[in-house]
Amino acid sequence: MFNLEREKIINKILKLNKKNPKILFQAPEGLKLMVSREMEEIEKELKNKGVGGDLFLWLNSCYGACDIPNVDNIDLIIHYGHEPLDYIKYKNVIFIPAYHEFDEEEKKKILEDVERFYKVGYKIVTTIQYKKLLKKFNPKVILGCRGEVEGEKILYVGTGRFHPLMLAYKYNKEILIYNPISKKLDKIGKEEIERFLKKRLSRVSKLLLNPPKKVGLILSTKPGQCRYKLLKEIEEELKKREIKYIKFLADNISPNLLFYDVDCYIIIACPRIVLDDFKLYDKDIYTVEEFKMFLNKSFDYKFDEVKEEDF
Amino acid sequence: MFNLEREKIINKILKLNKKNPKILFQAPEGLKLMVSREMEEIEKELKNKGVGGDLFLWLNSCYGACDIPNVDNIDLIIHYGHEPLDYIKYKNVIFIPAYHEFDEEEKKKILEDVERFYKVGYKIVTTIQYKKLLKKFNPKVILGCRGEVEGEKILYVGTGRFHPLMLAYKYNKEILIYNPISKKLDKIGKEEIERFLKKRLSRVSKLLLNPPKKVGLILSTKPGQCRYKLLKEIEEELKKREIKYIKFLADNISPNLLFYDVDCYIIIACPRIVLDDFKLYDKDIYTVEEFKMFLNKSFDYKFDEVKEEDF
Repeated sequence: MFNLEREKIINKILKLNKKNPKILFQAPEGLKLMVSREMEEIEKELKNKGVGGDLFLWLNSCYGACDIPNVDNIDLIIHYGHEPLDYIKYKNVIFIPAYHEFDEEEKKKILEDVERFYKVGYKIVTTIQYKKLLKKFNPKVILGCRGEVEGEKILYVGTGRFHPLMLAYKYNKEILIYNPISKKLDKIGKEEIERFLKKRLSRVSKLLLNPPKKVGLILSTKPGQCRYKLLKEIEEELKKREIKYIKFLADNISPNLLFYDVDCYIIIACPRIVLDDFKLYDKDIYTVEEFKMFLNKSFDYKFDEVKEEDF
Repeated sequence: MFNLEREKIINKILKLNKKNPKILFQAPEGLKLMVSREMEEIEKELKNKGVGGDLFLWLNSCYGACDIPNVDNIDLIIHYGHEPLDYIKYKNVIFIPAYHEFDEEEKKKILEDVERFYKVGYKIVTTIQYKKLLKKFNPKVILGCRGEVEGEKILYVGTGRFHPLMLAYKYNKEILIYNPISKKLDKIGKEEIERFLKKRLSRVSKLLLNPPKKVGLILSTKPGQCRYKLLKEIEEELKKREIKYIKFLADNISPNLLFYDVDCYIIIACPRIVLDDFKLYDKDIYTVEEFKMFLNKSFDYKFDEVKEEDF
């Protein structure tokens, strides 16, 4: 179903020219089980070639190419499911996009379905898994935290709602969804987006009505989420306005960890922590852009996008 | 209440001789809030001395001196609540034991209370926080994963049950507990230990009745839990017996992460993950010593202790 590019991986491992190279495999939730089985095959083939690879599967998170484990003593990390981000310097990491592969009949059906939208002016967006399949439509690959799409009408081709929600939040626009597995259509409608924006705007209003005296700033250790320059900018703003703050460093952020005496937290990490999970937190959490709305007294909602200049 | 040794920390930071040193403060749950406040005082004093420290509090775990965050670009880590472990090479870490301080009257009461047991032959064990206070009794400092205590009768002086449970598991012996905060006595009784041992022995029996065909081996990235040499030993044993296995690497281990097609998992990390939380896991998890009981067909329960030679 997914092309896990076994040959490519084995060649990379052989090129290390080590007798017992330590290899760490990392995959998103949906691919982990498959990769655990793939590792057995890779191990066998390496053995046949006289290499006794010391293979490990990363048990923890793999939220994206932003989320590479901070580990020492590993000769090579095999990261599945994402493309490298251009603003990160990766050391000893190779990326396997895990292209989804379909048989000819299915492929034909998907391309016909998508073509119908493409023809009437829809811009096609997708994730890396379907980039090759949809090549003829010149699709735009997006991330959960980032993506530029021009065009009035947008069709997202992929599974789940995580990626198209980014577009809905960012452009405040209805997003059509085509699932290439089920071949079914879905959408993120105007009402859903309005509801979401209303909720976030009401949290920003709370700040305006009752300005925080002390805030928590949470920086991430994940290489593609560690927006240190952005943190420094926010610190300058807070100093200017004499708002106190305390800085936290975190690998993973979860509600049970935030029990400090601050009025709210600003998440200087993945914006989706705030947008997807804010209801789970006792104290209000804000994206950087949301907090800037408060600072600038703006009511024009802005999606907090991870950008190269944040680092 | 706790001696957080502010002066020592400030001197260490000043000695870095940097204008904006990056300092990471790390503390166990019970000290985190206090340390967050302490950081504000340290920041002020540094400012008065012309140093603009870039201070962060570690938001994630601090289970012991075994659990130092794998972070780059930090000039100094201030770790509260534990003593360094002699089998780890620490880089840029200082340890603040956080000695508990009492007023004279309280101190007197505690010493009198403990003396009553000491006099009748109890061996006094405690955690680093009360080591100084109990000096006259020549107390033994123990960890949750490790500790040697000689003596028929044992009095643990400290809060909580995490530490004395280690002794109960290891020595299969009743442990008396004196809480220096509440001044109350408690114990881990024979029945409780028997109940626990019965449960673990029944899990080991399951392995003997139905030997696993494939197991998951989980190695930890935490510097004081990464028992790599022990992993290699287990691998050799499994190969000999033609039991298949897959290796995992993890920072934190939790039940929702273990969904692989193996018959059980061996936790080559902190033994307390198994002993305290095994009921939370769908599939059986075992300590290394428990798995060795299966390999050796032994029914003599052995506490899995983290040792220098495991690394």
